[in-house]
Amino acid sequence: MIELDYRNCLAARIGSEGISEEKLESVKKQAFAELENIKKNPPGFMKLPVRFDEARKIREDAKKYRDFKNLVVLGIGGSALGNITLKNMLTHTYHNQGKNGGYPNLYVLDNVDPEWTSELSDIIDLKDTVFNVITKSGSTAETLSNFFFFLEKLKKERSDWKDHLVFTTGNKGFLREFADENGIKTYSVPEDVGGRYSVLSEVGLFPAAVTGLNIESLLEGAADAEENEHVPVTYAALQYYFYKKGKNISVFMPYSKKLESTADWFRQLWAESLGKNEKTGPTPVKAIGTTDQHSQVQLYMEGPKDKVFTFLSVKDSSPEVKLKYDGHFLGGKTMRGLFNAELEGTTGALTKEDRPNMNFEIPKIDAYNAGELLYQLEMACAITGGMLGIDPFNQPGVELGKKLAYEILEKNTGQLI
Amino acid sequence: MIELDYRNCLAARIGSEGISEEKLESVKKQAFAELENIKKNPPGFMKLPVRFDEARKIREDAKKYRDFKNLVVLGIGGSALGNITLKNMLTHTYHNQGKNGGYPNLYVLDNVDPEWTSELSDIIDLKDTVFNVITKSGSTAETLSNFFFFLEKLKKERSDWKDHLVFTTGNKGFLREFADENGIKTYSVPEDVGGRYSVLSEVGLFPAAVTGLNIESLLEGAADAEENEHVPVTYAALQYYFYKKGKNISVFMPYSKKLESTADWFRQLWAESLGKNEKTGPTPVKAIGTTDQHSQVQLYMEGPKDKVFTFLSVKDSSPEVKLKYDGHFLGGKTMRGLFNAELEGTTGALTKEDRPNMNFEIPKIDAYNAGELLYQLEMACAITGGMLGIDPFNQPGVELGKKLAYEILEKNTGQLI
Repeated sequence: MIELDYRNCLAARIGSEGISEEKLESVKKQAFAELENIKKNPPGFMKLPVRFDEARKIREDAKKYRDFKNLVVLGIGGSALGNITLKNMLTHTYHNQGKNGGYPNLYVLDNVDPEWTSELSDIIDLKDTVFNVITKSGSTAETLSNFFFFLEKLKKERSDWKDHLVFTTGNKGFLREFADENGIKTYSVPEDVGGRYSVLSEVGLFPAAVTGLNIESLLEGAADAEENEHVPVTYAALQYYFYKKGKNISVFMPYSKKLESTADWFRQLWAESLGKNEKTGPTPVKAIGTTDQHSQVQLYMEGPKDKVFTFLSVKDSSPEVKLKYDGHFLGGKTMRGLFNAELEGTTGALTKEDRPNMNFEIPKIDAYNAGELLYQLEMACAITGGMLGIDPFNQPGVELGKKLAYEILEKNTGQLI
Repeated sequence: MIELDYRNCLAARIGSEGISEEKLESVKKQAFAELENIKKNPPGFMKLPVRFDEARKIREDAKKYRDFKNLVVLGIGGSALGNITLKNMLTHTYHNQGKNGGYPNLYVLDNVDPEWTSELSDIIDLKDTVFNVITKSGSTAETLSNFFFFLEKLKKERSDWKDHLVFTTGNKGFLREFADENGIKTYSVPEDVGGRYSVLSEVGLFPAAVTGLNIESLLEGAADAEENEHVPVTYAALQYYFYKKGKNISVFMPYSKKLESTADWFRQLWAESLGKNEKTGPTPVKAIGTTDQHSQVQLYMEGPKDKVFTFLSVKDSSPEVKLKYDGHFLGGKTMRGLFNAELEGTTGALTKEDRPNMNFEIPKIDAYNAGELLYQLEMACAITGGMLGIDPFNQPGVELGKKLAYEILEKNTGQLI
């Protein structure tokens, strides 16, 4: 079970910058009430962990795609970040450089930079590549742009082009119609699950299964998280409390390279769910230990007290990397020992400077714990949103920019287009 | 020349959230005065752009290392971020996957995660690998840990192990002594150049030269930036003004995959230089367009008005990626057209919501413009620091955490070590 150590948030440790035990109890009660309220009419993401039958089916399907050398996900935002996160956590760092264990390489193209698209195109051979196009609306401009680019090439080069496509989309929209017309293999995104809560749906599961991850274990971890409600409740209570106390920045800092993308995923979850009106919206900030000790910790230690910190650490001590060098104090130590001591040093120093910080302790990095962690953070986000009195499931603020972009695109006929 | 479009910061466009033309003129005067003050006793980084002789020597040296298949940089913070930034900007996205143009692959190992170190070790063959160990103090624990790990392996496997090492370090410290004893090829970090200002010194230049980048052009761009002082002066003036107005978050958001790591580099420059006392320290936030339109822009548009935004865009329209699909509005457009329209849509929408934003327009991504951009940002940082009344060149706040970490490391004899 993942545990949350929040003692460095308590007034007993950090004085008036912290929260008293009594106050914490009362804010937690509020958070629990909010959770009960949410459960009365559970949002879509809460129904995902028990979909073992669907997962088994996806696992079976996935086998058919494992002869491809590359799986390219075309998606953006919630249709990309979950896939990036699972890959980062659960595959070899150099998966795409010969360490894929016989499973396909995985590329997630989540932008419309012509340089990136053409450079990705440089290194993949279409005959060895399957594309998973993911967009719930079926009309996301970035995703369709990349789709059109590769579709044209596929059609030119491959008579079996339809077999190189798998769609993950909603029940309506351009992509669904294209699929129906052309007989493309398609997964449905559950209607009541939004992008940033979709990692445990078909959106995250299909690419994970193709690349050999244990998706049933992932769901199990999420399902079991429900028995551990005090973790998301406490996390939500503390995030809510410190935001209301004027700390408008929430730093999320894993001490683990494999958890790095979890911070990108958290950043979307937190920003898009909670940034809802001029009075409400903590800004999530991604950092990584120990690297950012040499980049951000000066600011975290001595700058304004406008932040609350979440650390993530891994208990499992493998692999053992022993440092051997006679006559230097690091000789005889392990790299994990240094890594953990650096984390303790940083949290200790922040605490001495009265800066609230907490730590998710993860037993080890595997599919089960990934499921538990991601689900707990989703729960915490829904609870925090409820406490803040906003809707954590919509994102009305992105429409204006989109509208303006399309107007510009239509108007311009010169060099821009 | 790189230009800064700051019109979306003006009161004429965003009302009282913006700055009036008069006020801007007076803050710019302050910034210019600060720059004149800095120039009287120029900090080390300002002496780097004219070191063409040193650059030529490094370029010549570098040729000797190009027969290696891999260059692995062991460094952290300022001894890593510059290298990552130059690689990201100026080499193929898949440089290390067969697109290195015959130059060595480049890996920058900037953490002490035993999983990462051992996974990097999995994919490199020591006989084909040269390590550039970079630490100005010569004693950075993270860097030495990775060095000791690979040194032991090198000594076991290679009688010519000394030829697989290049150090970049100061005139004192462990690494310098090791180099003297063992005759290791060593570059000196200029004494008056700190890590986060060192990208144009030996720290950044040697790895860049080995991987085939035009380091003289890089310096030229930086040298020419001095003729364009109004850019860093205006940028510093605006950053200073909006921070003082209570906007404690500074978002840095390139619309370019190749400029993504520039945001990580900026983040260190800004945080470590300006986060100096409880009253001073804007928090830099990395974002990337269009990707983060689907992650952060909801918060940026509708959340609290606690941010100032810096965008970066690329004028050059190559490569042309044309989208072909009859019957869809994207058909006939180019991907660059969509990319630029999305940027315009986002800045337009932020402006309508009275959120100050500005844009660095970069003619094209090459070594010359990289040098100009990085140098302008360093200048802007030094000026902003002066205006804020703090020392932008020290980092006292990282010492306590280090001290605590070493105490923990020494005390523990159990599983931690």
